[in-house]
Amino acid sequence: MTYRNPVPTVDMIIELMDQPQRPIILIERKNSPYGWALPGGFVDYGETVETAARREAREEVNLEIELIEQFHVYSDPSRDPRKHTLSIVFIASAKGKPTPADDAKNLRIFDLWELPENLCFDHDKIIKDYLNYRYYKFRPQLLH
Amino acid sequence: MTYRNPVPTVDMIIELMDQPQRPIILIERKNSPYGWALPGGFVDYGETVETAARREAREEVNLEIELIEQFHVYSDPSRDPRKHTLSIVFIASAKGKPTPADDAKNLRIFDLWELPENLCFDHDKIIKDYLNYRYYKFRPQLLH
Repeated sequence: MTYRNPVPTVDMIIELMDQPQRPIILIERKNSPYGWALPGGFVDYGETVETAARREAREEVNLEIELIEQFHVYSDPSRDPRKHTLSIVFIASAKGKPTPADDAKNLRIFDLWELPENLCFDHDKIIKDYLNYRYYKFRPQLLH
Repeated sequence: MTYRNPVPTVDMIIELMDQPQRPIILIERKNSPYGWALPGGFVDYGETVETAARREAREEVNLEIELIEQFHVYSDPSRDPRKHTLSIVFIASAKGKPTPADDAKNLRIFDLWELPENLCFDHDKIIKDYLNYRYYKFRPQLLH
């Protein structure tokens, strides 16, 4: 008998430390679901979530990131239209010029006051929570 | 093609609010690996990590818990001898008398200064991190 479980992923909010106001990176996805999203991806068997976060940043935006903290775990079953995933979201920092690769067909650096809406997955909610944390130090609420 | 991923679990540090010094609950496992551990279990497909934590507390120690916060995610591939799991660890509170059930063949309420060592999985590390957080507000370090 096999049990089905949600599939773990990581997403990274990458603050660019060598630019004014520490803007963050969004990628435009090459694969479905299409649209803008935080960089991230699946956690491989045998790797830690921290290793997955650093690897995905390297693969998708060509940056070596420094992980600042585990921000929050998002696990609403409807957050990903493909299947039930949960995401461990990290806040990270990096310097230099990101370039898109792998699952990212494009990327853009966004100041916090110009972040787009209608992102893929639940990334609108993650961004909203991040802004509340960065501006006011409020932590995301737990689900009921 | 199927990808293998770590399997998500939850563990709960349950502080008993109606007892002096807010002691916590450990269970003695009925199944392998045997020994003392934090209450917890696998996250089911279709349920949030918060729902899984409340459900497992109900099933294993017969308490309705209030989730205080997501404490930390532990994902070292060697943390579970059976297969690669990751655990989202919650700090929670409860009142009343816990009783063991399901995967718990026994339980005990421990004051913080008498917590046993050689717990199952990486729960020694989790307890150590928890004490550093509860006493000093230090957060667990990220893995390299």
